[in-house]
Amino acid sequence: MGGVCVLAYSGGLDTSVSIPWIRERGYEVVALTVDVGQGEDLDAVRERALACGAREALVVDAREEFARDFVLPALRANALYEGKYPLVSALSRPLIARHLARVAREVGAGAVAHGCTGKGNDQVRFEVSLAALAPDLEVLAPIRDSEMSREKAMAYAAEKGVPVPATPSAPYSIDENLWGRAAEAGVLEDPWEAPPARVFAITADPERAPDAPEELVISFREGTPASLDGRELPLADLIRELTGRAGAHGVGRVDMVENRRVGIKSREVYEVPAAQVLIAAHRDLEDLTLERDLAHFKADLEPVYARLVYDGLWFSPLREALDAFFAKTQEPVTGEVRVRLYKGSCQVVGRRSPNSLYDPSLATYGSGDAFRHADARGYVSIYGLPLRVWARRRRP
Amino acid sequence: MGGVCVLAYSGGLDTSVSIPWIRERGYEVVALTVDVGQGEDLDAVRERALACGAREALVVDAREEFARDFVLPALRANALYEGKYPLVSALSRPLIARHLARVAREVGAGAVAHGCTGKGNDQVRFEVSLAALAPDLEVLAPIRDSEMSREKAMAYAAEKGVPVPATPSAPYSIDENLWGRAAEAGVLEDPWEAPPARVFAITADPERAPDAPEELVISFREGTPASLDGRELPLADLIRELTGRAGAHGVGRVDMVENRRVGIKSREVYEVPAAQVLIAAHRDLEDLTLERDLAHFKADLEPVYARLVYDGLWFSPLREALDAFFAKTQEPVTGEVRVRLYKGSCQVVGRRSPNSLYDPSLATYGSGDAFRHADARGYVSIYGLPLRVWARRRRP
Amino acid sequence: MGGVCVLAYSGGLDTSVSIPWIRERGYEVVALTVDVGQGEDLDAVRERALACGAREALVVDAREEFARDFVLPALRANALYEGKYPLVSALSRPLIARHLARVAREVGAGAVAHGCTGKGNDQVRFEVSLAALAPDLEVLAPIRDSEMSREKAMAYAAEKGVPVPATPSAPYSIDENLWGRAAEAGVLEDPWEAPPARVFAITADPERAPDAPEELVISFREGTPASLDGRELPLADLIRELTGRAGAHGVGRVDMVENRRVGIKSREVYEVPAAQVLIAAHRDLEDLTLERDLAHFKADLEPVYARLVYDGLWFSPLREALDAFFAKTQEPVTGEVRVRLYKGSCQVVGRRSPNSLYDPSLATYGSGDAFRHADARGYVSIYGLPLRVWARRRRP
Amino acid sequence: MGGVCVLAYSGGLDTSVSIPWIRERGYEVVALTVDVGQGEDLDAVRERALACGAREALVVDAREEFARDFVLPALRANALYEGKYPLVSALSRPLIARHLARVAREVGAGAVAHGCTGKGNDQVRFEVSLAALAPDLEVLAPIRDSEMSREKAMAYAAEKGVPVPATPSAPYSIDENLWGRAAEAGVLEDPWEAPPARVFAITADPERAPDAPEELVISFREGTPASLDGRELPLADLIRELTGRAGAHGVGRVDMVENRRVGIKSREVYEVPAAQVLIAAHRDLEDLTLERDLAHFKADLEPVYARLVYDGLWFSPLREALDAFFAKTQEPVTGEVRVRLYKGSCQVVGRRSPNSLYDPSLATYGSGDAFRHADARGYVSIYGLPLRVWARRRRP
Repeated sequence: MGGVCVLAYSGGLDTSVSIPWIRERGYEVVALTVDVGQGEDLDAVRERALACGAREALVVDAREEFARDFVLPALRANALYEGKYPLVSALSRPLIARHLARVAREVGAGAVAHGCTGKGNDQVRFEVSLAALAPDLEVLAPIRDSEMSREKAMAYAAEKGVPVPATPSAPYSIDENLWGRAAEAGVLEDPWEAPPARVFAITADPERAPDAPEELVISFREGTPASLDGRELPLADLIRELTGRAGAHGVGRVDMVENRRVGIKSREVYEVPAAQVLIAAHRDLEDLTLERDLAHFKADLEPVYARLVYDGLWFSPLREALDAFFAKTQEPVTGEVRVRLYKGSCQVVGRRSPNSLYDPSLATYGSGDAFRHADARGYVSIYGLPLRVWARRRRP
Repeated sequence: MGGVCVLAYSGGLDTSVSIPWIRERGYEVVALTVDVGQGEDLDAVRERALACGAREALVVDAREEFARDFVLPALRANALYEGKYPLVSALSRPLIARHLARVAREVGAGAVAHGCTGKGNDQVRFEVSLAALAPDLEVLAPIRDSEMSREKAMAYAAEKGVPVPATPSAPYSIDENLWGRAAEAGVLEDPWEAPPARVFAITADPERAPDAPEELVISFREGTPASLDGRELPLADLIRELTGRAGAHGVGRVDMVENRRVGIKSREVYEVPAAQVLIAAHRDLEDLTLERDLAHFKADLEPVYARLVYDGLWFSPLREALDAFFAKTQEPVTGEVRVRLYKGSCQVVGRRSPNSLYDPSLATYGSGDAFRHADARGYVSIYGLPLRVWARRRRP
Repeated sequence: MGGVCVLAYSGGLDTSVSIPWIRERGYEVVALTVDVGQGEDLDAVRERALACGAREALVVDAREEFARDFVLPALRANALYEGKYPLVSALSRPLIARHLARVAREVGAGAVAHGCTGKGNDQVRFEVSLAALAPDLEVLAPIRDSEMSREKAMAYAAEKGVPVPATPSAPYSIDENLWGRAAEAGVLEDPWEAPPARVFAITADPERAPDAPEELVISFREGTPASLDGRELPLADLIRELTGRAGAHGVGRVDMVENRRVGIKSREVYEVPAAQVLIAAHRDLEDLTLERDLAHFKADLEPVYARLVYDGLWFSPLREALDAFFAKTQEPVTGEVRVRLYKGSCQVVGRRSPNSLYDPSLATYGSGDAFRHADARGYVSIYGLPLRVWARRRRP
Repeated sequence: MGGVCVLAYSGGLDTSVSIPWIRERGYEVVALTVDVGQGEDLDAVRERALACGAREALVVDAREEFARDFVLPALRANALYEGKYPLVSALSRPLIARHLARVAREVGAGAVAHGCTGKGNDQVRFEVSLAALAPDLEVLAPIRDSEMSREKAMAYAAEKGVPVPATPSAPYSIDENLWGRAAEAGVLEDPWEAPPARVFAITADPERAPDAPEELVISFREGTPASLDGRELPLADLIRELTGRAGAHGVGRVDMVENRRVGIKSREVYEVPAAQVLIAAHRDLEDLTLERDLAHFKADLEPVYARLVYDGLWFSPLREALDAFFAKTQEPVTGEVRVRLYKGSCQVVGRRSPNSLYDPSLATYGSGDAFRHADARGYVSIYGLPLRVWARRRRP
């Protein structure tokens, strides 16, 4: 035992009490806080870590890295776990694990730690990421391995003089980053009850959203969002602005019962305005620019990718191979999409691309028709031949 | 040649001019109109068929059959072609083909006919269905096989004294049934332009929809919609009522560029209020009641099913086998779903079921936790073992 | 504690030492041995259980049940884990679990037990099956949970006076049933070395197999093997006879590195003569009788099914739903297959069926050709249209 | 009309009569023969083209290009259509189409031609490849579009003075290249009859194969076969040598009923000794070096790839994206495989790799066990949790 342990530090109760717990086991603690757009006062978080007994407290701004290396591949894969959840926390955990491993190397630490409980997904994401990136590091999980309930954690904090965060009895658990915000547990535990208004923080109530719709134009270059209403923006900035504008219209609320990796169902409420708008726009541009078989097969791989990332397997060779597939598909996905935001809904109302495969002269029923109608009879005849043979055999 | 030909008759220009065309080839024509909820005056349609020269004109009310045998399996499969289109016309074509084959047997016809063009999906759906149901029947396709453009059809109608429908120059092509309404071509051919207001018929403009949200409760029994706000309704009636209520809130507009079976992309606008609400509710109840692996795998089969049906393969052994799979999955899908309709969006806000697999005592982070936290460490360790071994090999 | 525990008893060292271990924890032990065709003297096994201290020792002949309820569905799914392993042990474990649960109910036991270690698949299969069948029963795993190595088990056996099986230092681990025989570990642990001759028990060395080939005719009725060379046989008997005949020709040896459920690779040697012959014959008859799309999609589901069963999920709703799919597909799979056995290989050399979809008048290039060649031009043109449009856009 | 047409010329009856047929339609003919290892006297073929009236006759040696650009990707994908056919002709057609398009550009031709009939796969492969590579070129298909039967072709040849190949009444149709040889039709049309000995040309009858087995060692570097028994060889040479050695042992005979793209089943006999050995060896090395999830998912994509290539879609964006996936997977596939050839069977008997993920210290049941057994209990408990919850709900 002994030596240094790098702790992924959020500033909340669980990671705060982890500091004295780890120190009691003979380690010095380096607290690492990664800024993925959670929108908190990270100087204050840093101070708290030191007040809790950390030897050192680091803050890393990883917002653009998060957008580029994690959010963007997920967007290109239109990744929605169980068709709804755009993987908010599931994308930040591997990034944080990567920084944990990096800092551990830099400070010569033999251990890293996280503050997750035993029944959530994040322990899986942290530990599997670390197994893939730094299989030699020891991983401590103070909250899980000491089976520390919220009540016990409060008592332990009092005992150790740990400065407890302002809202010790928050009615639900929160995680937030650039790509969205998650709330679970507490008042949400009855899935028959609609989520109460106070659960929402970054999206307006649709009934109180502006009475006039707003239209956006998002442009993509090879699958990457490049500009908003004609202004080129770094991806993290584009996402932040879109969060504000779409959230103001009440867009992005998700209320679902999902399957956690550890085998239980939980009810989750997400606010993901930017994710909903960008995925809708990206999909729509793909509809215009991807060849049919490619589009259909890509759609079949998307849920596979979403489940893989949700399940903590970001740093896996399967994720890398799927990303090679997706990257190849994005070459023609360049163009513009018009999106209308209004009272909780976002609707694509127009799309165009220099690589559009939509050809009005083929699709039209009017004059100027370039389709060879005479081909259709032969096509249908041969296309239906297997069923014709099968039917003849069945009905002699 | 000669004998009787049964024509799928809609009352529009294409099927109307088909009657003299078929007669010129030596057949007597029996016109068959199937009521799938298109909401037209079918007595008038029947009269028009006779006026065009049909020997006989039959109207069949198949609304409940359509709902039960075609819409319901599609709903249980949450079938959305390319993630968006609930297969409105794709579901009615095999039903009509079944009636064509039945009537052909009854009247001793050797041929059947449809009025589709060569570049749409419906020719495929009709002919492949007929190949599977009655491979011996000849199939005539007057419009396609004579390459009759709209202009030519008008001229031919005038020449033959065919009573032309009221709106010969409709700016787009329409198909409607119980499950929704489709519009394509005409003013919609530029996918960058938003669909004009006049394209929509059964959904309100969200901006003009009521200012107060409306909440519905839909109950399902083994995957079948059973009641609306507590009133048990036959499926066709439930769909009709839902169409009215959800459409009034502007719910159900779909604007997409889709891949037709014949290899071209086309821009389509659909209005599918009942389909959007029922699929959202059904999926949500499945989230609550289906075991994880089953839920994930079912989700992977759903787009396969949607493509199969879109592509005209309803009467195929693969569709039958997939339906055997889906039917088995629906056993626990019993319960109630709360849906909120508001200004173009429909949001599930609550769900409950006697078969719910959601267990608050497992999911909670509070007291009363039934989850064995001590298991988690071992779980994560073995779950991540393949990546740990792989990582060790990669980084020696 | 206390009460009765039903132990799945094989007669080997691990399950034998489990008896005193369980008794020390306050249970009376009922030993249950299920005959799945392992070809041992089960009276002797029964005697040994009693000698080890079991209160009662039961032997159940489940051979036909095993064939019908477990092997047959796997055969219809052509189930081969990782393309090679026909799931020998993976199929017997859920059957044994079912009998464990049944006997536990009958004798009023509150616990069941198995003798598996912590790194194999069988612990998973037993415990997950029991979780699905009898979630209230406690499950004991003496060998795993006491981390008893082979050496420790031998010492414990000596201490407790347990009669040790004849070959305490067998160079590898064996499991056998009607569907085949597995050997792993020991001398096989270097995957570069060919398996030594002494590993094989039910297949001849191909070099010493008969110099003349032997031909079999296997008939199937709706996917179920019905007769061998014209003699109708119960399935278990047919498999047993085929094992003898094909094994004599050296057919059925599998040497592979496979992925265990618990995340490690292991080198396994299997002897599965009947499985190889029956799956080859069954697949071939499907090639003749299944419609193309159905055949292709069924082939895609087969590895899913094999992995599911390998991973211990027999009693899952997904397995039930997949079996509903497969059962539907088997309706036309009736006919006969000729198989040639020779020096380690089995080759299908002929197949016929009343439901054959092979139509020589369509396939022939000679006279009597019923294929409409004129259709082909139109077919190819439209079939290739998406690529033509894509190519035009790419190469302006 | 008029101008130049480049004809894919094999020297057989169909392509020979195509020359005067195309000339009669006003084109000059450039005959192009691509050497893909068909093992014929291509000088004689060239002479025959000129004798038939071609303006010019070109022969291109594309053997190494074929191996590297077409066979190798298929091998990395372990591509077997319907589990059996390694895509012999399906791989050469896009290569030939690429040369047709190239030569057409070079000689300023406006048309290309092939000699395929209307019921085979090759017309699809040629025309779809050409649509993707050179959508502006006209494609002539003399045999198909004139519906010329074998008898008519013979008569037309006599009329035009075309030198007819030596065996006008061959009892079946043949295609051969480096990767194997295909025979269909003729005496093979009854799928119940075993293929007669005279059908086979490059594989020995297993009964007449050597009485002693032969062992090979094949090494791979990142998925590419690199050496045979320690000798580094260009891929085309390695395949040629392997064809000789494995064929001599009777390895590589495939007898199957397959589904052609045009909707009919046909009985085919293939000889593919090198393909069977290389795919078996390559798969086995993947079993040793690929992480589990990657291995399983790759296996699911392999039949998709095989069907795509079989169906003529080589030059499609989906094939390119799948190849990006496969290429990524091959990085660790380096190592050696021992294969035993004997009387018609090829068996892998050993494999090793510097990237092996097989770890004896994890897999062993003996001492030196590095697996943490204590983790297994928790793992199994959580792994089975979804079924436990489901079971409790089902059995209250």
